[in-house]
Amino acid sequence: MTVPVRIAIDAMGGDHGPETILAGVEVARVRHPDTAFVLFGDEARLRPILEKYPALAASARIVHTDVVVGMDDKPSQALRRGRYRSSMWRAIDAVKVNEADAAVSAGNTGALMAMAKVNLRTMPGIGRPAIAAIWPTLRGESIVLDVGASIGATAQSLIEMAIMGSAMARTVFDIEHPTVGLLNVGVEEIKGVEEVKEAGRILREEGVPDVRYFGFVEGNDIGAGTVDVVVTEGFSGNIALKTAEGTAKQLAAYLRAAMGRTLRARLGYLLARDAFAVLRQKMDPRRSNGGVFLGLNGVVIKSHGGADAEGFAAAVDLGYDMVRHRLLARIQTSIVSRPASVATIGAEAAEAEGQS
Amino acid sequence: MTVPVRIAIDAMGGDHGPETILAGVEVARVRHPDTAFVLFGDEARLRPILEKYPALAASARIVHTDVVVGMDDKPSQALRRGRYRSSMWRAIDAVKVNEADAAVSAGNTGALMAMAKVNLRTMPGIGRPAIAAIWPTLRGESIVLDVGASIGATAQSLIEMAIMGSAMARTVFDIEHPTVGLLNVGVEEIKGVEEVKEAGRILREEGVPDVRYFGFVEGNDIGAGTVDVVVTEGFSGNIALKTAEGTAKQLAAYLRAAMGRTLRARLGYLLARDAFAVLRQKMDPRRSNGGVFLGLNGVVIKSHGGADAEGFAAAVDLGYDMVRHRLLARIQTSIVSRPASVATIGAEAAEAEGQS
Repeated sequence: MTVPVRIAIDAMGGDHGPETILAGVEVARVRHPDTAFVLFGDEARLRPILEKYPALAASARIVHTDVVVGMDDKPSQALRRGRYRSSMWRAIDAVKVNEADAAVSAGNTGALMAMAKVNLRTMPGIGRPAIAAIWPTLRGESIVLDVGASIGATAQSLIEMAIMGSAMARTVFDIEHPTVGLLNVGVEEIKGVEEVKEAGRILREEGVPDVRYFGFVEGNDIGAGTVDVVVTEGFSGNIALKTAEGTAKQLAAYLRAAMGRTLRARLGYLLARDAFAVLRQKMDPRRSNGGVFLGLNGVVIKSHGGADAEGFAAAVDLGYDMVRHRLLARIQTSIVSRPASVATIGAEAAEAEGQS
Repeated sequence: MTVPVRIAIDAMGGDHGPETILAGVEVARVRHPDTAFVLFGDEARLRPILEKYPALAASARIVHTDVVVGMDDKPSQALRRGRYRSSMWRAIDAVKVNEADAAVSAGNTGALMAMAKVNLRTMPGIGRPAIAAIWPTLRGESIVLDVGASIGATAQSLIEMAIMGSAMARTVFDIEHPTVGLLNVGVEEIKGVEEVKEAGRILREEGVPDVRYFGFVEGNDIGAGTVDVVVTEGFSGNIALKTAEGTAKQLAAYLRAAMGRTLRARLGYLLARDAFAVLRQKMDPRRSNGGVFLGLNGVVIKSHGGADAEGFAAAVDLGYDMVRHRLLARIQTSIVSRPASVATIGAEAAEAEGQS
């Protein structure tokens, strides 16, 4: 029998409260019965909810916390008020002290990243963490990072992301040599993408172990699935992610409006409703919910704040997969086998990054 | 009777050659019979095509050029080989010497922008030009800029874009007080967006005439149509634009696949085909083809290189509208009424920008 995966849950994070979080945990538990959960939050609120799920209650324990990080708290505020005491901090801390293998929170991204950085620290050899998203594409799924951990990136940061993203792709997609593209704009000789060009030059000419470099890709290549891993700095990554979400919503609204327009259209819709159900499932953002924090000494998953139970369950699944397939060990192996010429100079480089 | 609008056409630009360009010009001519065209290109190729459109032939003249800027030429190459002599340069030059009111090209963006900058120069009071795109949204249409003229932007550049975008929105959408949002990421206290924050502070606290500032917007707000004008620097703007294009293509492919899946779905599709036609039209990227170069002493429109006749016609329409509604004069008025505190310091600022 395999060792259970232990997942720490910030039961107070997210827009919909602990009812939704625990319902999501229950959905994930059914899919992965070999999981033990630690639920951090207000015991008086969590206990009655947990009692509705007897099977979950058997494999979960509640750890009481009385501070909740607000969805709009600034990271500095969250650290001031919530360090050591909030459900968010304690879920991360469970990973730190090896009482859990992964932490999952639907709380606010900035606070979660700040706490994870302060408590777990970045992995040796990594300048700074990144947030990776799984992106549905025409060819299946790809990984896009960074979708919002930091703004701007040096060539070294981009290469570290290429390494971490490749390790994650091997973990999630079970492919040995995932392809990696650097996100760029298609205009030649434009100023200001020196870091992207330099990272491309190093990946192409010097090569980095465990990274199969494809070349530059553009925004439309993400949805096309041109590469398995798309690397970019956090501002443009976040803009790309949210723009795609917005476009998907927009087209779904167009489709609904078109299908309700005439009696014939409504009849057609009824006839084709199984097909529309398939389409809806394809477009369901809950299926790919969950941002993975990469580059820390521990697995932390950020669920969308507005996720429902099904969405939160997807984030828990992601944490489960990362642990089962040994994401951290894979990243560590790739990082140490990286030639010195493409390695950051440890703390010094991390420091310089932090100030850029 | 109104004075005709004179449009210079780079008849050699684009992926599909002059046949497509002239077919597009003919489509636009039918919609705007009060237009005179000057077609720049290889006369031996253009003449027989033009003869197929007798009405167009009556309102167009051909100016022979024997250099064509390649779709993959670097801007520096294009300037070296094509200055004074290429169809692209000559179309822009027609605007410069007041033989035309606007130039339209489907040639390569970098070369077109480089030539337009060198020949037309930036407007007084503007640090550098930007490319604006018209973006279909749930509420209608919005303007997004910069979608790829420059990488990075100072607070001053962002404010200039807010001014130029507002002037364009008044021109294209015929609304008196268009709202303006600054594209940002939703993570608080993240480093590196100081320029965006500073621009937001100035627009909010000091205020800029003719700019109705809404606040920060995120990627998903573009498709939602939250504001009439979305301002961002060129890297993220370009990524957003192409990511949205990619997502739209991806969802269209999902829809096609779903509708062909079963006999019932195909029947449903047939019944609802008028509705699908409406949807297709809504999603048709040709309807919003055309990037407007803002901030130059002349109107230059970039058509998508892969545009068909209908798409190229949309770019010509856009040029026509800009001239008819006096875009340049509107921008100039807003720029000169801008208080000194938010003005760039002329050439010095432009110089500093160029080196950033």
